[in-house]
Parts: sequence; C-alpha cells; structure tokens
Amino acid sequence: MQNITVALDAMGGDFGPCVTVPAAVQALSHFPELKVVLVGDRNAIRTQLQKIGYTGETRLRVEHCDRVISNSEKPSLALRNSHDTSMRVAIDLVESSQVDACVSGGNTGALMALSRFRLKLLPGIDRPALVTALPTSKGNKTWMLDLGANVSVDSESLFQFAVMGSALAEEHLGKPARVAILNIGAEEIKGNDLVKRCSELLSQTKSVHYIGYIEGNELFHDAADVIVCDGFVGNSVLKACEGTAQLFVDKLKSKMSASGVKGWLARMLFSDVITELKTLNPDQYNGASLLGLRGIVIKSHGSADISAVVNAIGEAVHEVNRQVPTRISDRLEAVLFERQY
Amino acid sequence: MQNITVALDAMGGDFGPCVTVPAAVQALSHFPELKVVLVGDRNAIRTQLQKIGYTGETRLRVEHCDRVISNSEKPSLALRNSHDTSMRVAIDLVESSQVDACVSGGNTGALMALSRFRLKLLPGIDRPALVTALPTSKGNKTWMLDLGANVSVDSESLFQFAVMGSALAEEHLGKPARVAILNIGAEEIKGNDLVKRCSELLSQTKSVHYIGYIEGNELFHDAADVIVCDGFVGNSVLKACEGTAQLFVDKLKSKMSASGVKGWLARMLFSDVITELKTLNPDQYNGASLLGLRGIVIKSHGSADISAVVNAIGEAVHEVNRQVPTRISDRLEAVLFERQY
Repeated sequence: MQNITVALDAMGGDFGPCVTVPAAVQALSHFPELKVVLVGDRNAIRTQLQKIGYTGETRLRVEHCDRVISNSEKPSLALRNSHDTSMRVAIDLVESSQVDACVSGGNTGALMALSRFRLKLLPGIDRPALVTALPTSKGNKTWMLDLGANVSVDSESLFQFAVMGSALAEEHLGKPARVAILNIGAEEIKGNDLVKRCSELLSQTKSVHYIGYIEGNELFHDAADVIVCDGFVGNSVLKACEGTAQLFVDKLKSKMSASGVKGWLARMLFSDVITELKTLNPDQYNGASLLGLRGIVIKSHGSADISAVVNAIGEAVHEVNRQVPTRISDRLEAVLFERQY
Repeated sequence: MQNITVALDAMGGDFGPCVTVPAAVQALSHFPELKVVLVGDRNAIRTQLQKIGYTGETRLRVEHCDRVISNSEKPSLALRNSHDTSMRVAIDLVESSQVDACVSGGNTGALMALSRFRLKLLPGIDRPALVTALPTSKGNKTWMLDLGANVSVDSESLFQFAVMGSALAEEHLGKPARVAILNIGAEEIKGNDLVKRCSELLSQTKSVHYIGYIEGNELFHDAADVIVCDGFVGNSVLKACEGTAQLFVDKLKSKMSASGVKGWLARMLFSDVITELKTLNPDQYNGASLLGLRGIVIKSHGSADISAVVNAIGEAVHEVNRQVPTRISDRLEAVLFERQY
C-alpha cells in the first residue's frame, strides 16, 4: 500500500488545534497508509497532543510556524503577507512535493489565492472551483460546484467547472456523470446570460454528458451527478440547505426533550431518525475540494468538528489515491481536442 | 367593512380551475369582505363550480376569456401575444380599477412583464421584485426579495428592493424592519461588487434600518426582518430550502408507514411533528407579492394546492387593506428626499 502524506493546517478553522490535532490522530487510525504533518504553533499543538494522551506516533510530525492568516484578512493582503503562516507553509509542502495534499479550515479566499499562486492552475483552467458531494434521497451523491471560490464567473469558467466536476464524479461513479446547470427554471427560456451561454457550450460538447437545467428543489433528487453554478449562488444555496436541515433537527430534538411518556417515546423513536436526518445534512459532508490546481487542496468547514475534519482528511486521501488532478487534466485535454476538431 | 375585489387567473398554475375554483370558493368563506372575479374559460370554470356543488354566490363572478399564456412562453412574446389571455385580462381588471388586486399562478416572467407594461412602476422604482415571507425558528416572519422577478440587477435596484421590503415588513411588524443583504460571508470583505455597492448605499441611508450581511444558513434565525438578494440567488435559495424541507418530511413519513407497533407509535408521535415541520416549509407560505407596481399583483406557486391558493388570495386581501403600493411610494419619497438633502 502506497504511503500518503497530508499536511494539515493545524491553526485553521474556528477551533484551531483543539479540533485539528485530535482529528489528525483519529485520521491516522482510520487510514493505515496515512502520514500527517501538523502545521502550526509547536507549543499549541504539543499541548493538545498531551491532552489526548498522545504517545509518539512515527506517522505524525509537527512543522512549526509562528503566524496565522485571520478569517477577515483580504485574500490580496494575505497573499503578500503570508510568509510563515500555517496555511502558506502547508501549501508550500504540497508545492515542494514533501506531502501529497493539504487540508485547511482557514480563510477560503486566502486559501484559494495562495493555492493558485503557489501551485498554479492546470492548463485550460481559468479559475479553481470549490466542490463538495451532497447527499441524495436515494443514498447516492451529487457533486456541486462552485461553492464560493469565485464570487463571479463567465460562462467559459462555468463550462470548465462542468468538465472538472465530471472528472471527479466519474472517479467515484465509474460511469459517465450526468451534468446539470443550476437554474431558476427547467425551461430553456429561463435564467440569466451566464447559464444560457454555458448551456450552449455544454450542449456542443460530446465528451460531457450534459442533461440541462436543474432547479434548487431538485438538489437531493439524484436528478444529476454534477451540478454547476457560480460561487455566490452555490455558497448561498448550500448554506440555506444547512440552515433548513438544522431547523428541522432542532424541532425534533425539542420533542425529545419533552418530559413524561411522550418524551420517552419520542427519544426512543426519534434518536435513529435524527441520526438518519443528520446524514442528509450537507454540512456533514465536510471536505470541499479546490479543483483546477496542480495539487490537491481540501477546504474544511471553519466550524467543522473533529469527525468532520477527519472526513476532510479522508477526502484528501481519496483524491491522492485517485490522482484527481491528473484525471482532470486528461479530461480537459479530451475536451480541448474535441473543440479543435 | 370595506369590500375587496380580487381577480383570480383561474387558468394559471399547474392544475388550473381544478385548484383555483375551489380555492376561490373557500377564500370567500374565509374573508367576508371579499369578492372574487374568476378569469378564464367559462365552461371549465362552471364544470368545477358544479363539481363542488357551488350554489349561486353573489360575491363571485366569472370573466370569460379564450386564451392562456403557457409556462414556456417567452415574456417578450407573451407581452405581444397576450390579448384575451386569463393573465392579461386579470391584470387589466386591476389597471381599470374594476378590482383591487389580482392573483395568478401562471408564467412568472409573463406576469412580471404584463404587470409592468399594464400597471406601470411606482416613481423611483427601476424593477419590480417578488417577495415572500419565510418562517423563522422563533415563529416570526422574514421577508425575502427578489425571488426571481429579475435574473440580474444592479446595486441601485437591490437598494430599491431593500426600501420596498422595509415598507412591506413594517406594515406587518409595526416597527422599523431590520434589513440585511444575503451574502456568502458576514465579513465586509466578502461578496461580489453587487452586494458591496448596495451595502454602501444602505449604510448611507438613515431611513432604512440596515444591519449588514447575512448568510444562507441564518435565513430562519430571525436575524433580520428583510433579506435582499438578486432574483437568481433568491429563487435558487428558496427552492433549495423547499427541497431540503421535503427531504426531511419524506424521511419521517417513511418511518410512519412502517408496520407493527413501531409504525403505530411513529404515526402517533410524528403526525403533529410533521404538521409543525410543514409550517416551517417555505413552500407553505404561498403568495409572493410583485412589489414596485402601481397595483397589487400576487404570484401564486405554479404547483400550489387549494389551501396555498387561498393563502395567496389572503395575501392580496391583506395588501389591499394595508394599501401597500401607497406605503411603498411614501417610503420611496422619504428616501429620495433624504438622498437629496
């Protein structure tokens, strides 16, 4: 089994080492082929390792750096001022091939800018995109992108997202992925110029299995394997789904907290329902991948808990095994070839 | 009590008279001050009236017309070709002051184009906007606009949406409405140029109580009374919430259909939960208002059932009582005045 080394930005996310350090240790027990480099403040990391009674694990090492990029920092500023920050060092470890992938829960804009600056884009890609897998009612997954790497894109970039999404989804599915564009109606006349132009481009491309428009209420219907939209829409939609899911889970929990027989029955019946419902919460699927780069960068939720960060590390392991960047560039070549002839 | 007459596009929506006719009759019993003009094919409407054993209601009359605007028709074409269609006739009844408001479940684009063409915009408004009230976890409402009347807007239009939303919300609340812009992050640096420019405009306007950005996962947190966004984002977000809500309700229903004691217990416990959860489904809040016009036009969901159409008619009644268009133009005048001096 091939060894896989992942650099984890230990200082990233809302909770920093309190979450990232235990997550790294758990991930090591989940993935026997995994090695982790914890990037961040040596002392803060050691304190957490001691807390969880960590006993010298040869598959884990600490890469010390003094600084952190704040969530409020402008990407442009973060770029100029990133020297010796945990995020920058983690990305540089990918760039210098000392690790196979990196995971960070830090400032999304900064992560994108730094990754793009240090790792460079794949040929044929104008902008990277954040992608994640949504659960569907049939137990399958639907990959949605962009989730906020870009606040505005043109139809050509949206087209490239579709190509990248197909490559990623087909790695999981093992068959051609159904690609749809998120729109405010299924009819051809619906939507803005961005989606209409992208729809034309995809319709002309045989090497992408384009099935047309899809509406927000069909996200979980397993109606498509890949759904593309601009980052502002994707981010808003995904967060709205999370908000709705949370609203429902809270409602059920309030029933369970009721006293007496009714509360007891509710607890007995709802507990497994809530577990099931939680699997439907997109928030559980942590580990959004930054596609379009010459390296593997996984964005973890800022608010991710330990198991969610383990999921993000797991996504990194998966993408290294599947050589996702290579698959994407192969796919892009095929599309460019098709467009030329 | 002042009489209120509402024209209902009987042919609009996915089910036409099968839903609109019984809805009109139910609405009459809900609202004693209400009169309804059913606009559409005389025979189709009469058949439905007979079906529900309708006995000559003096508060209901039928306005016959032969044609219907299809959901796939381009707004521009619908505009040119709208003569004698149920939607056009219903809107004209408002224009000629024969009714106080109209309700249609038909083609949204056509409804906006026709309303704008026939009723004209209020002074100071560049584009109308679709608004609806979302439920919140605290049992209050949050008004969100635009929900799809426009697929692309500039910051000035978004600013006008905020002003219109304030006027509508404050009619319900009886106090200044907290206005927020939907964005992909709460920090100032987040978002695209549209939201950033609109944020500047709102920050400079004392007569609007602007509280900043809000993210998609906070829609139901009662964090704002009015949330503005462009129509593409609003429509996608609202439908995504509906899709998530439906996913959860279906999950619970499957539990209830289980056989044996567990199924029986589930039915006993879940039935009221599902009723509660349904009240959290934005889809239940039918009756999106088309704001910014010199008349009252309510858009009903194409897929709305009878009770949902009754809600839409109820919204029309409410807006007539509150003279919403007048309130909005008063509010706009105040803002324009503030901007001048």
